[in-house]
Amino acid sequence: MIGATIDAAKLAALVEDGMAAVERAMIQATDSDVDVLREASLHILGAGGKRIRPRLLLLTYLALGGRDVDYVANPAAAIELMHTASVVHDDINDHGILRRGRPSVNAIWGRTFALLTGDFLFTAVYELMAPYQDLNVDLAKAATGLVEGETLQASAVKSNTFTREAYMQIIARKTAALFRAASTIGAKLAGSHPDDIRVLSEFGYNLGIAFQIVDDILDLVSDQNKMGKTTGVDIFQGRGVAVALNDANGNGRAQAKDPLDDIRRKLMEGDTIELAREQASLLIDSSIASLAILDDSPAKLELISLARQIIERDS
Amino acid sequence: MIGATIDAAKLAALVEDGMAAVERAMIQATDSDVDVLREASLHILGAGGKRIRPRLLLLTYLALGGRDVDYVANPAAAIELMHTASVVHDDINDHGILRRGRPSVNAIWGRTFALLTGDFLFTAVYELMAPYQDLNVDLAKAATGLVEGETLQASAVKSNTFTREAYMQIIARKTAALFRAASTIGAKLAGSHPDDIRVLSEFGYNLGIAFQIVDDILDLVSDQNKMGKTTGVDIFQGRGVAVALNDANGNGRAQAKDPLDDIRRKLMEGDTIELAREQASLLIDSSIASLAILDDSPAKLELISLARQIIERDS
Repeated sequence: MIGATIDAAKLAALVEDGMAAVERAMIQATDSDVDVLREASLHILGAGGKRIRPRLLLLTYLALGGRDVDYVANPAAAIELMHTASVVHDDINDHGILRRGRPSVNAIWGRTFALLTGDFLFTAVYELMAPYQDLNVDLAKAATGLVEGETLQASAVKSNTFTREAYMQIIARKTAALFRAASTIGAKLAGSHPDDIRVLSEFGYNLGIAFQIVDDILDLVSDQNKMGKTTGVDIFQGRGVAVALNDANGNGRAQAKDPLDDIRRKLMEGDTIELAREQASLLIDSSIASLAILDDSPAKLELISLARQIIERDS
Repeated sequence: MIGATIDAAKLAALVEDGMAAVERAMIQATDSDVDVLREASLHILGAGGKRIRPRLLLLTYLALGGRDVDYVANPAAAIELMHTASVVHDDINDHGILRRGRPSVNAIWGRTFALLTGDFLFTAVYELMAPYQDLNVDLAKAATGLVEGETLQASAVKSNTFTREAYMQIIARKTAALFRAASTIGAKLAGSHPDDIRVLSEFGYNLGIAFQIVDDILDLVSDQNKMGKTTGVDIFQGRGVAVALNDANGNGRAQAKDPLDDIRRKLMEGDTIELAREQASLLIDSSIASLAILDDSPAKLELISLARQIIERDS
C-alpha cells in the first residue's frame, strides 16, 4: 500500500481532482493545429459520456493505496480516448447519427473526417502512452481485442450466425478487454502485489461483461433521448444481448421493414431481458465478493458503488 | 559503432536476413483468430509493396554500425504496418479499388471490414512496439503526423484551397514524418551519437518529401498497371504535386466530367512536372551529401543507393 487510509471526504476530493485531470489530459492529447481533428475531438469529448473506464482505473488505483491522481491521469485518459476512437468508427459503420446526446462526428463532418478523427484518437492514445513501457502491453492487447470484437460482431451480422456463444466472445473482446485493462493498469500503477492485480483484472473484466449486457438491454428498452445515442441500431443489425439470449428468436437478424418494433415487442413478451439482467446481476455480485481481499476503505466502497451503478443504471 | 566493418557480400546477406525477419514480424503481428482481420492483413501485406520504410530503418541501423538485424525487425515491421494501415483507410476515403496490383481491401471485403482492418493494423503496431519505451515517442508522433497530413489533404480538397504551401505541409506530415521516424529509430537502435541521430533523422525526412513528390508525379504520368494502384485518384481529388506547383492551373480541383485527362494534358504541356522532379532531385542530392559524417561502408553505399532509387524509380 502506498498511502495511508483516508476518509470519505478526502477520497471524494481526490476522485474529483483525478477525473478533472483526466479531462485535461484528453483535451491536451487531442490538441492539434488541424482544425477538424481538434474540433471533432472536442465535440465528442465535450459531449460527456459516463467516463466509467477512467473512473474504474482511478478507483482501483485509490482502493489499492495509490494517492497521486495526477500520476494516473494520462493512462486513464488513454483508456477513455481508446473507447472514444472506437465509438467514432462504430458510428461510421452503423450510420449512427446521435451519440451522447449530440450529432455523431460522422453526422456533422462526414465519413472521411470521422474515419480520420477516429484514427487521430487512436494515435493520441499511442502518443499519450508512449512513455509507459509495461502498461502499453496491457492497453495494446485490449485495443486489438476491441477491434477484433467489433469485427466478430460485424462478421456475425453478415453471416447471420448470432449465437449466445458468439455474443459472449464479442462482448468479452469489444468491451470487457478494455475494462480489464483499466483495472489492471490502475492496480499496477498503485504498485500492487501480483495477486491483487490479478483479482482486480478479473473484477474489471466481469464489470465489462455486465456493462455490455446492461447496455444492450437498455438499447432495447430505453428511450432514445435518455440513452443519448441512436438506439435500435444494435438490434436492427441483428446483434445485442436479447437476440443472442433468445435462440427461439430465430437467427436474430432484422429483416422486416421496421424491424425494431417487431423485435422489441417479441422480446418484451418473453423473459429474455429479465434473464439477461439476472446474469449481469450475478456477475456484479460475484465481482463485488472478489474484492474481499482488499482492506476496507472509502475507495473500496466507491469501487463497489461503481459496480452497483452498472447494474442499476437506466441510461 | 557497434560492429566491425563488413564487406558488401556480408552486408547483402544481412539486409536479406533483416528484410525476411521484417516480413515474418508483420505476419506474426497480424495473426488473429478473427478470420477477416487475418486474411485481409495477409492480402495487403502479401501484395508486396516497396518496403522502403523498413529498408530505410534497417540500412540506417547498419550504416551506423548495428549488426543484429533480428533486433530491429519489430520496429521496422511496425513502421511498415503503420504505413499499411493508412493505405487501407486511404482506399476507403478515396474509393481506390486497386492497390499494389491487387484489389484493395475495401474492394474485396467492403467498407466496414476495411475500416476495421485498418484499425487492426494500427493496434498491431501498438502491440508490437509496446516493449520499446523511447522509440514509441518517435513512432507515435509520426503516426499522429500521418493522420494530420491525410486530414489536411482532405480539408484542402474540400475547401478548394490547394496551394504550394499547403502541399508541402501535407506531404511533410503524411509521408516525411514516417520516413523520419524510420531513420531516427534505426539510428537510435544502433546506439548512435545524438549528432548522428539528428543527421539521419533529417536524411529520412528529406527522403520522404522527395519520395512523395516523385509518387505524385508518377501518379500523373505513369501507366496504371505499373503503379499497381488506382492512379488518377489523387489528381481527381484535386491534390498532388502538379496541382500545387502549378498555381496558374486555377485552384487545382478537378471539376470536369473526366477531369484526369484534361488536367494531365494541361500539365504535360507546361514544365510543372519537370520542375517538381528537379526539386525532388535537389533534395536527394543534398540528403546524400549530408551523409558525409558517416564512415564509408557498404551499408552507407546502400543507403545512398536507396536515396537514388527514390528519384530514379518509374513505379
